[in-house]
Amino acid sequence: MALSEFELIQRYFAHIVPSLQNISLGVGDDAALIHIDDNCELALSIDTQQTHTHFPEHAAPQDIAQRAFRCAISDLAAMGARPLCFTLALSLPEADEHWLENFSAGLTQVAQEFSCPLVGGDTTRGSLSITMQMQGSVEKGTAIKRSGAQAGDVIFVSGFLGGAAAYVELLRQGTPESEPVDHARELFHADYYQPLPCIALGRAIKQYATSAIDVSDGLLADLQHICDASGVKAILNVHSLPTRPELQETFTQQATTLALTGGDDYQLCFTVPEKYAHNVIKLGEDMECPLTVIGSITEAANGEAIITCLKQDGSILDISTLANTGYSHF
Amino acid sequence: MALSEFELIQRYFAHIVPSLQNISLGVGDDAALIHIDDNCELALSIDTQQTHTHFPEHAAPQDIAQRAFRCAISDLAAMGARPLCFTLALSLPEADEHWLENFSAGLTQVAQEFSCPLVGGDTTRGSLSITMQMQGSVEKGTAIKRSGAQAGDVIFVSGFLGGAAAYVELLRQGTPESEPVDHARELFHADYYQPLPCIALGRAIKQYATSAIDVSDGLLADLQHICDASGVKAILNVHSLPTRPELQETFTQQATTLALTGGDDYQLCFTVPEKYAHNVIKLGEDMECPLTVIGSITEAANGEAIITCLKQDGSILDISTLANTGYSHF
Repeated sequence: MALSEFELIQRYFAHIVPSLQNISLGVGDDAALIHIDDNCELALSIDTQQTHTHFPEHAAPQDIAQRAFRCAISDLAAMGARPLCFTLALSLPEADEHWLENFSAGLTQVAQEFSCPLVGGDTTRGSLSITMQMQGSVEKGTAIKRSGAQAGDVIFVSGFLGGAAAYVELLRQGTPESEPVDHARELFHADYYQPLPCIALGRAIKQYATSAIDVSDGLLADLQHICDASGVKAILNVHSLPTRPELQETFTQQATTLALTGGDDYQLCFTVPEKYAHNVIKLGEDMECPLTVIGSITEAANGEAIITCLKQDGSILDISTLANTGYSHF
Repeated sequence: MALSEFELIQRYFAHIVPSLQNISLGVGDDAALIHIDDNCELALSIDTQQTHTHFPEHAAPQDIAQRAFRCAISDLAAMGARPLCFTLALSLPEADEHWLENFSAGLTQVAQEFSCPLVGGDTTRGSLSITMQMQGSVEKGTAIKRSGAQAGDVIFVSGFLGGAAAYVELLRQGTPESEPVDHARELFHADYYQPLPCIALGRAIKQYATSAIDVSDGLLADLQHICDASGVKAILNVHSLPTRPELQETFTQQATTLALTGGDDYQLCFTVPEKYAHNVIKLGEDMECPLTVIGSITEAANGEAIITCLKQDGSILDISTLANTGYSHF
């Protein structure tokens, strides 16, 4: 599209939000927040996945179901919300019973894993498209928004980056799906189809984090959303980006680009005041969840909410030269 | 599809609902009900509209937006819920700015009419598809479900039936959209694209109604859902069906079929214990909302939750001979 998704939403839809008392947070964050009672807010997030854009045409129905659910629930993780339930709008070209059985099996498994039941839906005939809306709840006033990052904060990211994009890259290079699977490919496949939404982590860091986002469009794109919403600048230490050894081995030169711009990792990127950084590191150790400090937040000089990427030798990486792998089309 | 939507949902999705304390009502009613606090429940309903299935390819974007919103919010009316906010997942083949401007204008207008703001969404590239989820709230334990109808209840329907189906029928007969518009066609067009979701009516009848559904698939199909969910039988007086004079004039013989099986009217069909029928009639008069008694509920002999249609002379109309116009494809 000529317009980015972000521009399109800002221009045509962001204003359809009359200022109502019960809307705590509208269009433009990971989830909307609705005031429910004195104790709790409802977090809502809707996500669509389509053939060719979000998965290849012949992806396994279990994988499609798992991925759609995991990507959708990840927005709740980024708000520090607890999953409540989900709804499903499913568009299908035909009612293929074998496909439906496997899709249903994948969905049942992941819904049970997150104790997040399906409560309603709609089925229509059309090209394959899966829209899920996640409902979550969060203690009033404690949700982690994109807009709270401040100069002096350190930037954390969870898990490993670039694995999902590596899978997409392997497919793009034409490695057939049926080829004998090696260890790295198996890892990247799981990174892509079975990302681990950081629900528990989001709940745990809520007390320290000033902002958070889930890495769905790619680290640079998503961190940029935090910078824009918070009106701050980010310094990113490129050599600190957490990647699997398998990513370095398989892609060498390209690994950094995949980690910076590859979407679909669904890790959490969040900011924490420096004085709490050690609490967060301790928390990650206790949860056996890898957490890495990848940079810091500074004031936006002249209001420029930009990201500066530093290489290990202190020189600046020109990010305009990176091919954007953040939005995949199969 | 070989499977009906209802069968498909029952077979593959109805079980993905672990029994959780906070889910008051899951898959299979107009909306799901989520327990929020001691006073209120959240009503959730998700709906998809697609080109060719729900509107013709060149329908005006304002009309598409209005219709999608009105159809989606109608499910809240059928539960007696108050609209809270909505989300939008929009799939577009291209970012046509003229189309988007008009779609946005139509959506803004109708969202304001119902004081129901857009709080979040997702846009993807693909064939045109509009999924909206409506969030509503309802006082705890007072939502009108499909399952409460009892022998001795009378059956009401609001407004007029068959108008939306008449518009679809005119298109099917090949009357060009551009033809000089006569009064009847204008009415049917409005019935189709601008149905009037009965939010206020749903709120008002809540104290009397034992069951309710909005007429989206056609009166027979939707009343059948009430019979199935409640385990009762319905006697429908076909000569009592409320239709516009214009429907009779334009379609004569076919008018009854359109009123019985034509979907997309988004009127409320609901049941009320006989002793409260006069209260409901009074209520309709006060609200200037036409309400018609169209039949009654009896016990389901041998558990057969069927509908019997009586003609004015007391003979039975064989509904198996009616062409189903309840699910339209353009």
